[in-house]
Amino acid sequence: MSVDVSSSEPDPRADGPILLRETSGPVCTLTLNRPEQFNALSEALLDELQTSLDAIAEDTSVRVVVLAARGRAFCAGHDLKEMRANPDQAYYEALFKKCSRMMLTMIRLPQPVIARVHGIATAAGCQLVATCDLAVASSAASLGTSGINVGLFCMTPGVALARKVQRKDAFELLFTGDIIPAERACELGLVNRVVPPEQLDGAVAALAQSIIGKSQAAVSAGKRVFYQQLELGLEAAYELASVEMARNMMFHDAGEGIDAFIGKRKPVWRHK
Amino acid sequence: MSVDVSSSEPDPRADGPILLRETSGPVCTLTLNRPEQFNALSEALLDELQTSLDAIAEDTSVRVVVLAARGRAFCAGHDLKEMRANPDQAYYEALFKKCSRMMLTMIRLPQPVIARVHGIATAAGCQLVATCDLAVASSAASLGTSGINVGLFCMTPGVALARKVQRKDAFELLFTGDIIPAERACELGLVNRVVPPEQLDGAVAALAQSIIGKSQAAVSAGKRVFYQQLELGLEAAYELASVEMARNMMFHDAGEGIDAFIGKRKPVWRHK
Amino acid sequence: MSVDVSSSEPDPRADGPILLRETSGPVCTLTLNRPEQFNALSEALLDELQTSLDAIAEDTSVRVVVLAARGRAFCAGHDLKEMRANPDQAYYEALFKKCSRMMLTMIRLPQPVIARVHGIATAAGCQLVATCDLAVASSAASLGTSGINVGLFCMTPGVALARKVQRKDAFELLFTGDIIPAERACELGLVNRVVPPEQLDGAVAALAQSIIGKSQAAVSAGKRVFYQQLELGLEAAYELASVEMARNMMFHDAGEGIDAFIGKRKPVWRHK
Repeated sequence: MSVDVSSSEPDPRADGPILLRETSGPVCTLTLNRPEQFNALSEALLDELQTSLDAIAEDTSVRVVVLAARGRAFCAGHDLKEMRANPDQAYYEALFKKCSRMMLTMIRLPQPVIARVHGIATAAGCQLVATCDLAVASSAASLGTSGINVGLFCMTPGVALARKVQRKDAFELLFTGDIIPAERACELGLVNRVVPPEQLDGAVAALAQSIIGKSQAAVSAGKRVFYQQLELGLEAAYELASVEMARNMMFHDAGEGIDAFIGKRKPVWRHK
Repeated sequence: MSVDVSSSEPDPRADGPILLRETSGPVCTLTLNRPEQFNALSEALLDELQTSLDAIAEDTSVRVVVLAARGRAFCAGHDLKEMRANPDQAYYEALFKKCSRMMLTMIRLPQPVIARVHGIATAAGCQLVATCDLAVASSAASLGTSGINVGLFCMTPGVALARKVQRKDAFELLFTGDIIPAERACELGLVNRVVPPEQLDGAVAALAQSIIGKSQAAVSAGKRVFYQQLELGLEAAYELASVEMARNMMFHDAGEGIDAFIGKRKPVWRHK
Repeated sequence: MSVDVSSSEPDPRADGPILLRETSGPVCTLTLNRPEQFNALSEALLDELQTSLDAIAEDTSVRVVVLAARGRAFCAGHDLKEMRANPDQAYYEALFKKCSRMMLTMIRLPQPVIARVHGIATAAGCQLVATCDLAVASSAASLGTSGINVGLFCMTPGVALARKVQRKDAFELLFTGDIIPAERACELGLVNRVVPPEQLDGAVAALAQSIIGKSQAAVSAGKRVFYQQLELGLEAAYELASVEMARNMMFHDAGEGIDAFIGKRKPVWRHK
C-alpha cells in the first residue's frame, strides 16, 4: 500500500494533512484526518475532498473509492467554529454550495464510493454516509442529523437523507436530532450492512473486491445511468436506459463476459 | 390544560363540537370528535380541520400539533352516508378537493404534526396518518386503505401512501383493502413507532417535547424546505437547500445554538 | 381450467409454445415456457408477452394476471446467445426498447399482475418481478441483477428496481450482481410475501382472489391513477386523484358498495 500525501494544506492542529489519500491497487481510500475536530468539514477539508474527487474522476487506475476517517468520530458535519467566525450570509451560501457541489461530485464520480463508518456521523457527516453509493458501518458507529439541536436545520443533509430512507424516518431524524445506532440506520436504509468493529475493514474490502471483479467500463456507465434515470419519469427512464444499455452491449467487456458465461470460463476484462 | 371550543358547528349526533381544540402550552391537540361515526370526515369536519389548521398556521404560540381522535376508531375516512346523499360528480370533486386541500395544508403548516393513532384508521383516515409528518400508534391500532372494498378506490389516500411506503406495499394495501396491525404499519414506514395503549400519550408527548426543545424558527424553516426539496431534482434540491440553510445560519438561534454548543451550555432560544 | 395455446411460434427446443396462456375463471396465467433456457427473454418470447398483454388489456373477462414460469428457474433475463448472434447496436437498442415497452405495458395493463416466483429470477427476470404490481415468492426462489457479472450493467432492470426498493439496496444489487434469497428480497420490498414452495400456488391464488372480490371497474381505474400520480408532484397528484375519485364515485359499483356497507350486506358488483 502506497501512501500519497495529496494534501498541500496541512491543518496545524492535526497530525499530517487533513485529507489522506492512500491507494492499494485499484482502491483509493480518502481518510478525513482532523480527529481532534471530529473530522469537521472545514472549508479546507471540503476543498481537499473536491480536489481529490476531481483527480480520481480522471484516474482510471482507481476502481473503487473508500471514504474513511481517523479518530473517534467519522465526521461531525460542518466546522461550527469556522462558521461562527464568518457571520455573513453570502459566506454561508458559498460554503453550503461548496459542500453540495462536493456531494454531487461523489454521485457523478465514475467510481463507486463506499463509506467506511467506524464512529459517529452527524449532520453533514451523516450526509456524507447517505451520499456514498454504499456504506458499511461498525456496530460501534451511530448516525444522526443533529443540526436542529444547535438551531441550524440540516437542510442540505436532508436532501441526501430523504433520497435514501423513507420519509417519516427522515422527518424523525431531522426534527428530533436523535442519534441512532448503526443497526437502526441499517434498518432505515442509510447503510448497507453493520459488522463488529474488528470486521469493518474486511467487510469494506469484500464489497470493494466484489466491484473490482467487474468490468470497470460497465460499472462506470452503470453508475452514471443509475443516477440519471432516477431523475426521470418512468417512460423517459426506460428510453435512456435502453439506449445506454445498447451502448454497453458494444463494449468489449460485454461480448467477452457473455462469451465467458456461455463457455463456462472466467472473463478477461479489458475495462472498455 | 385549557380547552378551546373552536368549532361553531356542533354535530347534533355527537357530544360536543365535532373537532376539539385543546392547547397545553405549545402543543395544540386537534381531536376528531364524531365517535359514533368513527370520526368520519364529513364536510363539516373537513371544514373544521381546515379552519383550525389555517388558524394554527398563523399562531406562533403553537409549536407542535397533535392529531387525535375520540371513541373506538381513529378515523374511518370519508362520511359515506353524506356522500351517498349527494350523488353528484361535481359535489364529489369538490369534496375530494376540499379534503386534498386540508392534507396539503398539514404539509405546509409551519408546525410539525404528529398523529396519535389509538384505533383503526382506514381510507382517508389512513391518509391522515400517512400525511402527518410523524405518527405514533398504539399496538391496538390498525390501518388500511379499504375503499376498494366498497367499490371506491382510495385514489387520494394513495397519493399520501405512495409517498410514505414502498410501492409494492402501497399497491397491496390499496388493492386488497386489507387492514394491517400497527406493528406492520410501522415496518412499512407508515408510522414511526408503536407502543402499548397505556404508553401512547407518553410516547406522543415525548416526541412533541423533543421538537419543542428546538428553535421554532429552525423547525418551521426546516419543515418547509424538507417538503419543497422533495419535489425537485437533486441539483435543484441542493441549490434550494444551500440558499435556505445560509438564511437559517443568520437566525439568532443558529448563532446562539452554535455558541452554546461550543461553550458546552444549554442554548436559550428566541425562536427567530 | 382451460388451456389456451395462444402462442403461434413454438420454440423447437421447448415442449410446447414458449408462452403458455391458461385461464381459470377470471385469472389469466401467463407461463414462460423455455425451461431449458431458464426462460430467457428471447425476442420471440418478448413478442409473445407483448401480444398476450395487449390482448388481455382488451379482455374484460380477465381480472387478474399471474406471471409464472416452468422449469427450475423463473427467468434468467435476456437471451444472451441470441444477443451475441446479433452484434449490432441498433439491434440491441431495438431489443431493449421492445423489452421496456413490454414492461410499460404491464404497468399500464388495466388488470393487476402478480408474479409467481418459484425459482431464480435474474437481470431482466428480476426486472419482471420488480415490475409486476405484486409478487409472491417461494422460499426456494432467489433474485438478483447479475448483468454486471457478464459486463452488461442491468440498466433497464435498474429502472424498475430503483422504483421498488431503497436506493442503497438497489445500488448494492446492481453493482455486486449478488443473488439474494427470497426472504431478503421481501425485506427490501421486491416481493410482497414469501411462502414455502408447496404453499406458493395457494398464496398466489389467495392474493388473486382478494382482488377478484373487488369491483373490476374500481380496480382498473385505481391501477391507472396509482401509477399516473406517482409521476406527478404532490399538488398535481392530488388534483388528478380528486377528479378521478369523483368519477369513481359515479360508478354503479361505488354506490352499490357503499349502500351494501351501510346496509350490512354483501355488495353485488356489476364491474362498471
